[in-house]
Amino acid sequence: MTEQTPVAIIGAGPAGLTLSHLLHQHGVESVVLESRSRHEVETTVRAGILEQGTLDLMRRTGVGERMEREADIDEGIEISVQGERTRIPLTELTGHTVAVYPQHEYLIDLIARRQADGGALLFETTVDAVGGTEDAPVIDYTDAAGRSCRLRADYVVAADGSRSPHRSTVDPTGAGRHRHEYPYAWFGVLVNAPKTQKELIYATHPEGFALISTRSDSVQRYYLQCEPSDTVDDWSDDRIWEALHTRADSPDLRISEGEIFDKAVLRFRSAVTEPMQRGRLFLAGDAAHTVPPTGAKGMNLAIADVAVLAPALVRALRGRPELLSDYSDIVLPRVWRAQHFSWWMSSMLHQAPDATTFESRRRLAELSSVLSSEAGRRYLAEQYVGRDLPEFEV
Amino acid sequence: MTEQTPVAIIGAGPAGLTLSHLLHQHGVESVVLESRSRHEVETTVRAGILEQGTLDLMRRTGVGERMEREADIDEGIEISVQGERTRIPLTELTGHTVAVYPQHEYLIDLIARRQADGGALLFETTVDAVGGTEDAPVIDYTDAAGRSCRLRADYVVAADGSRSPHRSTVDPTGAGRHRHEYPYAWFGVLVNAPKTQKELIYATHPEGFALISTRSDSVQRYYLQCEPSDTVDDWSDDRIWEALHTRADSPDLRISEGEIFDKAVLRFRSAVTEPMQRGRLFLAGDAAHTVPPTGAKGMNLAIADVAVLAPALVRALRGRPELLSDYSDIVLPRVWRAQHFSWWMSSMLHQAPDATTFESRRRLAELSSVLSSEAGRRYLAEQYVGRDLPEFEV
Repeated sequence: MTEQTPVAIIGAGPAGLTLSHLLHQHGVESVVLESRSRHEVETTVRAGILEQGTLDLMRRTGVGERMEREADIDEGIEISVQGERTRIPLTELTGHTVAVYPQHEYLIDLIARRQADGGALLFETTVDAVGGTEDAPVIDYTDAAGRSCRLRADYVVAADGSRSPHRSTVDPTGAGRHRHEYPYAWFGVLVNAPKTQKELIYATHPEGFALISTRSDSVQRYYLQCEPSDTVDDWSDDRIWEALHTRADSPDLRISEGEIFDKAVLRFRSAVTEPMQRGRLFLAGDAAHTVPPTGAKGMNLAIADVAVLAPALVRALRGRPELLSDYSDIVLPRVWRAQHFSWWMSSMLHQAPDATTFESRRRLAELSSVLSSEAGRRYLAEQYVGRDLPEFEV
Repeated sequence: MTEQTPVAIIGAGPAGLTLSHLLHQHGVESVVLESRSRHEVETTVRAGILEQGTLDLMRRTGVGERMEREADIDEGIEISVQGERTRIPLTELTGHTVAVYPQHEYLIDLIARRQADGGALLFETTVDAVGGTEDAPVIDYTDAAGRSCRLRADYVVAADGSRSPHRSTVDPTGAGRHRHEYPYAWFGVLVNAPKTQKELIYATHPEGFALISTRSDSVQRYYLQCEPSDTVDDWSDDRIWEALHTRADSPDLRISEGEIFDKAVLRFRSAVTEPMQRGRLFLAGDAAHTVPPTGAKGMNLAIADVAVLAPALVRALRGRPELLSDYSDIVLPRVWRAQHFSWWMSSMLHQAPDATTFESRRRLAELSSVLSSEAGRRYLAEQYVGRDLPEFEV
């Protein structure tokens, strides 16, 4: 059985689903192939902070309704340096807000909308090979019932995450891959507890970093800087609470406690593949680039990619391939600025285990320079809320 | 022969001479002991960019007249990224200016003023030992005529530069010394040529950094990033001009050429000793801290130190020693912020020889983030012009 689609999208994450949704809004259909089940996609808990550009796109394209109702809209964040807190008033400084809205909630909304719009979402579907000629790609896949199928597509988008096997098709020698490792990781916990306060607290302390985030009024998300080699077994509840209070309490604020019901280690790494395209195969989101969690740019970058890729594909299908040819050149500057921001926030807020005394003191002086200056706070806030997404006529 | 002075100052550099001048303005005399001759002090050519706080202090204390007449007052700088120039309008962004005024010109002005005021400046004078008891320091020295002399002082200030032997008295174990090395240096030349343009250009390029600075309408000061191990023999005139044009030319601006009459390698290093005092011995300027030349903070930090030390010594001599006790705590935050700024400007503008492709691209993205944002430009400009100097009643 051979089917045909203008755009085959591998992966039903933020990049793939948003692309499929945006294409549909422009009257272009697509097929999304996802190896996991819908249930798994919708229940794999992932944190999320949505930039103003992402929020604008959701509202503009009609998928922002539940987010608007349920997300925590944040007009500020706090940075705590050894218990001394400074508020960064995002909205006052930039005119924009961010929203705390977990990634899987975003995916639930997008899947519902794609299904309501009659979109082709194939879950539990394994891509076996992307072949064909460079001008006429063919995807061989195994569907949920175990049948071998074939899909012809005008264009193929690999949006299947940081381990995408299709990256090597775009960059066969690996020479286009630029990587950075960090000497720390995050230990994340979910806690049944009331909110510590409304806004997020990014805390730095000689013993390490902590992030006080939230999931809801009764479930809180806390992170602690840990060793990259740490496992869940290295962190007893007692150790977690002691570390959280040491690093993030301040004289007038104590981190709220409760039952810890989830523990996980998040790795820190940066990587970018450039260019993000070859022939009729395009990379989007984590398949092309990975950021560390500080600053929460991953999901926003994925959506920024497809905010360009969608109109570019629509134009190409209508005989105007120029924007599609420029896709990488257009999105990569944003990717690199986000890499810088993620690296900067990480470097400024974490105590590297091998830091010299000079480096530790310089880092605290940098925090003092940034936080004590309106320009410094605004420079940080602008990057935190993100830039507008580009808009292209089709 | 034993003399007595309230304050003995070792070193007639910016810190020592400014301290002596400020003390005099408060009615306190001092003795400055300098190993070099007056001629050597006045002719050792050193670049200098004066922060607005330094300019204000010169004007306020009556030593700014010639500077006002002869210095280039800069209301902006330019940053060139591979030939694409962005102006940082310092005055528009901060309300302040900086002045290009070489350090030895500042010293000429201060020496003339100290002598007009009857100040004791002992050149060609070698300090042999700082001894006595902790409450009653005694300096043994050899004067210009080769005589052994002794000077009793209430307080001793070591302002004798980065190789000060007195640092080890303040920090005997070296545990208070915080150091950083950089993987590059500057190759500096003086050229008989017209100005390339009025304002300084900080240029970065894949081949390295260059700084287009000036000494006068007919003498220009250019710097090129080089290897720390480079010597003057490694850089022929042809190599210098090729590197300058490659790194700093832009489509509408060519670096002006002329006869190169001076070549020198400037080392890059950062170091801070904390605290900067012990008993009645105080460190000021380079004796306590060294910055790399990027950002030109060295001389300004020296003057900022003594802007606190002078009123602190005056108060202490009048029976109120509290400010003097706090000297290090008051000046070190500024020292560390300047260390950060110097490190940041250096890291952002130099191509480290061992940089990964990720690091190089992240660096360019950082430049893009800073230069494309009004907040970023202002954050940089604020640090470039420096903060006001603290003022204390005596």
